[in-house]
Amino acid sequence: MTDASTCETATDLAERLIACPSVTPAQGLVFDELEAMLVPLGFEIDRFVRGEAPDGPVENMLAVRPGPAGSRHFAFAGHLDVVPPGEGWTSAPFAPERRGDLLYGRGAVDMKGSIASMVAALGQVPADAGTISFIITGDEEGPAVYGTRALIDRMRERDLAPDLCLVGEPTSVNRLGDMVKIGRRGSVNIWLEVEGVQGHVAYPHNADNPIPRLVAMLAELDALVLDEGTDWFQASNLEITDLEVGNPAHNVIPALAKARISIRFNDMHTGAELGAKVSEIAARHGGRAIPVISGESFLTPPGAFSAMITEAIRAETGIEPELSTSGGTSDARFLKDVCPVIEFGLCNATMHKRDEAVAMADLEALARIYARVAQAALRS
Amino acid sequence: MTDASTCETATDLAERLIACPSVTPAQGLVFDELEAMLVPLGFEIDRFVRGEAPDGPVENMLAVRPGPAGSRHFAFAGHLDVVPPGEGWTSAPFAPERRGDLLYGRGAVDMKGSIASMVAALGQVPADAGTISFIITGDEEGPAVYGTRALIDRMRERDLAPDLCLVGEPTSVNRLGDMVKIGRRGSVNIWLEVEGVQGHVAYPHNADNPIPRLVAMLAELDALVLDEGTDWFQASNLEITDLEVGNPAHNVIPALAKARISIRFNDMHTGAELGAKVSEIAARHGGRAIPVISGESFLTPPGAFSAMITEAIRAETGIEPELSTSGGTSDARFLKDVCPVIEFGLCNATMHKRDEAVAMADLEALARIYARVAQAALRS
Ligand SMILES: [Zn+2]
Ligand SMILES: [Zn+2]
Repeated sequence: MTDASTCETATDLAERLIACPSVTPAQGLVFDELEAMLVPLGFEIDRFVRGEAPDGPVENMLAVRPGPAGSRHFAFAGHLDVVPPGEGWTSAPFAPERRGDLLYGRGAVDMKGSIASMVAALGQVPADAGTISFIITGDEEGPAVYGTRALIDRMRERDLAPDLCLVGEPTSVNRLGDMVKIGRRGSVNIWLEVEGVQGHVAYPHNADNPIPRLVAMLAELDALVLDEGTDWFQASNLEITDLEVGNPAHNVIPALAKARISIRFNDMHTGAELGAKVSEIAARHGGRAIPVISGESFLTPPGAFSAMITEAIRAETGIEPELSTSGGTSDARFLKDVCPVIEFGLCNATMHKRDEAVAMADLEALARIYARVAQAALRS
Repeated sequence: MTDASTCETATDLAERLIACPSVTPAQGLVFDELEAMLVPLGFEIDRFVRGEAPDGPVENMLAVRPGPAGSRHFAFAGHLDVVPPGEGWTSAPFAPERRGDLLYGRGAVDMKGSIASMVAALGQVPADAGTISFIITGDEEGPAVYGTRALIDRMRERDLAPDLCLVGEPTSVNRLGDMVKIGRRGSVNIWLEVEGVQGHVAYPHNADNPIPRLVAMLAELDALVLDEGTDWFQASNLEITDLEVGNPAHNVIPALAKARISIRFNDMHTGAELGAKVSEIAARHGGRAIPVISGESFLTPPGAFSAMITEAIRAETGIEPELSTSGGTSDARFLKDVCPVIEFGLCNATMHKRDEAVAMADLEALARIYARVAQAALRS
C-alpha cells in the first residue's frame, strides 16, 4: 500500500471507468482514465489507434511495468469497450450509481469492473516481483479486427512475451469464483447457396428449383455428428441460423436459395477443416459454402496455471471453481498464440443487459484474487 | 350479315377494345366499348361493379341475347382486363397498330382479340338459333375475387344457366388451333411455420432451433408422390417456393422459421384434402400449415362438346387440336360449377409480354371457328 492511487478501492476505480462512455469501437477518454491510474503505479504506456469507421477507429493500450532483468512476466488482458446500453435503465448507464450492495453502470461486470480490480490488485504486487503488463483493447464486443490482434502484433514488434495471461471476462455464474474458463470453443459461420433456374410453378420442367437441394443439404448437415466431446470440451455443435429465398410470388419457382449455419467446435477441429467438410457436402448437393472463421478453439489444459487461480479463489472465497470451456468466444482465442491463457472474472448475470450491476464486495474480493494470482505467477 | 356492326372485321373490333386501357382491375371505357358492339346485335346488357381498392373496383358484364323459348343456351366467357404493359414497347401498348400481318397492342391475344372474334362470330349465328350470352369480367389477371365469381352469383340470381361455355383464353401454342384446354389443374399455396425458442448458438440447450424441424418437414413434403397422373392429367406437383427466417445475427438461434409451397393438382385431389394432408405432416414436425386454395381442378372429359370444337378447328384450319390440361389456372375453375366448360383461343407466345401481337388472319379464322362452335352448341 505504498502508492497513493491504491488508496482507491476497486469500486472507486470501477466508477471512474464506467463514467467514461465507451461503446465499441472505443477510444480516448476511457483510455485516458486508465492511463491516469497506471502511470502513478510505474507503468509505461503505449497507446495506438487502428482502423476506420464503421469498425474503427479503435484504441489499444499496452501498459508495462518492467520487473528486474530475467524476472517472470504476467499479463492482465481485457477490454474497455462496452455493448450499447439500450433502453430502460433505472439510472443513467454511464453515470455509475451505488444502490445497496451494488454498483450499477454499463461495463460494471463486462468488464470495466474487472479492470478496476486488476488495477487495485497491484497494490499488493511489489514492483520487484516481476514484469506486469496490461493488454487492453477498445474492440472486443465488436468485430475485434483492430483490437487484440493489433496488440499481439505490437507485442511481437516490441519482443514482449508474457509467460502467463489472465483475461478478466465475467466467467463467474452464480457466485464470484464458481467458474473459470480454461478454454473456449472455436466458431465458424458458413453461408450456403444453391442456384437453380427460375420458372413458373405450372411448368416445373422448364425450371430448376434450388430449394429441395438446399433442404437435402441442410438435412445432411443437421444430422452430422462432429464428435462426442473430449475430457474438457462438450461436443462440437452445428446450428442452422438462417434461411433465405425472398420470393414474394406464389406461382414462381425461385432461382436462388440461401442458408447460414454456425458451428461451435472443440479442439478436435479447426475452422478450415470444418469449412472444407461443409463445402464438400454443399457441392454434393449442387451448392456452395462460404466459411468465415470467427476464431479457433483454445485450451489451456488443467495444470500449474489453473491451480494458481483455483487456489487464489479458494483462499479468498472458499469456493472450488469449475474449470469450464463452455460459452462463446473471447479475445483469449487470439492471446492463446502468445502464452497460456485463462479467463476469470465477475458474475455474468447482468452482462449486456439493462441495469448491469456488480456487487461491490465482489470487486474487492476479485482484486485480492487477482493479486494472489499475479504473485503466484511471478513466483512460478 | 344483317347487322351494321358486323361489317366490322374481328381485327377492327379488336382495335377498338385494345384502344381502351384496362389494366386489372378494369372498369368503364372498355366495357362501354363492348356494350356498344353488343347492343346493336340484340344483347341485353347487365353491368355491375364490385370491390374496392386495391383489388377493385372491378366491372363485370353479363350480356344475353335470348333465343326462342326452350332453345339451348351457349356462353362465351372472357376478360377485358389486361396485365400491365411494362416497358420497351415498339409502339404504344394501348394504341393498336397494324404492322405487316400482325396487330400489336396489350390484350391482342390475352384476350381482347378473342372477345373481338366472339363478337364477329355473331354475324353467322342467327338470333333464332338459341340463347347466346357473354360472361365478361375485368378481374381475371388479378386476384379474381370480384370477377367471375360475382358473375356466377349474378347468373344464379337471374336463373341463367348456359348449357355449354367456351372461354376464350389463348390456348393455341404454335399455330391457331393446335391446342384446346379441356381441363386445368387446381392450385393451392400453403404457408408453413415452425416456432422455436430464440437463444445464443453457444448455448443451444437453452434454445430450441425451429429450422431443423422445418427442414425435415420440407424434406418429407418434397419426397411426397401425390399421384402418377391420369389419362387426362399429368401428375400433381408440389414445389417449395419460399424459405424465410430473416435472422441477421450470426450467433443467434432464431425463434421462427417459415416456408411456402405451391401444389398444382389434378382431379384426383381437392385443395382441402391436400391442405389437410400437408397440415398433418407439418404437425408431425411440430409446425403448422395455412393453406389458401386458388382454385380446384376441372375436367370436361372428351365428348360431344370437345368434338364440336375439334371439328370447327379442323374445318377452318385443317389442324387436329391436342386436348390438354396443362398450364396455369383460368376462370374456367369457377365456370365449371355452372356447366361444361372448355377453353380455346389465340396463340399465346406473346401474352403478358412486351409487343403482344396477334396475326390478323388468326382473328378472322377464330371468329369463323367460334361461329361454328356456337351454331353446333345451339343445335346440340
Ligand atoms: Zn467482455
Ligand atoms: Zn387471359
